[in-house]
Amino acid sequence: MERVYNFSPGPSMLPVPALEKAANEMLCYGKSGMSVMEMSHRGKDYMEIHKNAENLLRELMNIPGNYKVLFLQGGASLQFAMVPMNLYKTGKADYMKTGQFATKAIEEGQRFVDVNIVASSEDKVFSYIPEMDKSKFNPEADYFHITTNNTIFGTRFTELPDTGDVPLAADMSSNILSQAYDVSKFGLIYAGAQKNMGPAGLCAVIIREDLVREPMPKTPTMLMYKTHVKEEALYNTPPAYSIYMAMNV
Amino acid sequence: MERVYNFSPGPSMLPVPALEKAANEMLCYGKSGMSVMEMSHRGKDYMEIHKNAENLLRELMNIPGNYKVLFLQGGASLQFAMVPMNLYKTGKADYMKTGQFATKAIEEGQRFVDVNIVASSEDKVFSYIPEMDKSKFNPEADYFHITTNNTIFGTRFTELPDTGDVPLAADMSSNILSQAYDVSKFGLIYAGAQKNMGPAGLCAVIIREDLVREPMPKTPTMLMYKTHVKEEALYNTPPAYSIYMAMNV
Repeated sequence: MERVYNFSPGPSMLPVPALEKAANEMLCYGKSGMSVMEMSHRGKDYMEIHKNAENLLRELMNIPGNYKVLFLQGGASLQFAMVPMNLYKTGKADYMKTGQFATKAIEEGQRFVDVNIVASSEDKVFSYIPEMDKSKFNPEADYFHITTNNTIFGTRFTELPDTGDVPLAADMSSNILSQAYDVSKFGLIYAGAQKNMGPAGLCAVIIREDLVREPMPKTPTMLMYKTHVKEEALYNTPPAYSIYMAMNV
Repeated sequence: MERVYNFSPGPSMLPVPALEKAANEMLCYGKSGMSVMEMSHRGKDYMEIHKNAENLLRELMNIPGNYKVLFLQGGASLQFAMVPMNLYKTGKADYMKTGQFATKAIEEGQRFVDVNIVASSEDKVFSYIPEMDKSKFNPEADYFHITTNNTIFGTRFTELPDTGDVPLAADMSSNILSQAYDVSKFGLIYAGAQKNMGPAGLCAVIIREDLVREPMPKTPTMLMYKTHVKEEALYNTPPAYSIYMAMNV
């Protein structure tokens, strides 16, 4: 039983102590007499795990009090739809096209809003982060979307766009927790867990409270941020084990 | 470290041998040198786990070849929206109101289609399964929705409604695999895993091939059945560990 070195960007390696803890607690977590997978998500033990995972993320990223932290399912791919559906107001949004996932976010966004591609590095196979010309930004946009790090092409934003009052929405799946960010510069941050935080099946969303609003019509209830923000006792069964593992990591 | 007896309907107890296997394989699955949580979902080892879980479900439920088996995220709560969005044709659907989750399915369904409540047992706090009067069925409905088992109220359908050519769509979250069903009587079956199959974070969908069609406009790509049916190599990172556990159970 020899561990290999796994260079995959995600699902990526997890720390051995976190895996050992999980193995040791598999039949009985604390004094609960059961695995985390078997616990009621409304029970004290699980609620504590959930809260601890949230508090840990708040501490590590220094998340201000006026931001909500949500642990959702469906990965970044589902956020590509949830962001436009939930931040919908004028139906217009600015996007930076800096890689494969940025392109996916744009394609999905175009299904819901009028997408303005502010800058693109597609001409040179996404090998650089393009100049941001502020005159091309729409000051009325519902949000401005970036992908902070583009693993496949080895690029990242060293400087954030100055979007003024337009909320900056960032897919941080591939560099969350690997770099210090001032969360208050963002309106919304999302990240699939499986690259930097834990196992697949979990997506963290950090959203400024005032952006949790009435989404566009025909948004499924499960896809509304407000559903998950308002349910103190959780709207439905969360991906508990992934959250537990993320807390261990 | 004493195991308690857990009577919760879900998340429910998992078999000790499945948990022991998971604990033993936590640092190294087979000869892979890594945990299932760390594997690429495009790799041979994981693809085999995924295929095995599907084959096992096919075998246990005797699922005909013209049905697709999908392992999705978001639980039954997300299916309450995905069923109307994906089976959308005339925009009309029949529902049986037999309990709390049946009511949730109806409330979510009403956001997308014109819901015809064929029968309800709400008058006596859902304590019985109401008579089904076929003259109230809409022969043009896109689907006919039932909740096969209503745990909270202790009722279940002993006989399935005869819906003719209208596909029967069933939320089987609370009795899947605990009772033998003839899958060919259904157009679509869905079930959150955490009651009868495995840990939370996974929802199984069994759908007859001809029902995988173009969904209603503005359906997010991740919420289209066709997205997950056509992607041989998986559309995005699946809830791998939940699928692995379901296979063990």
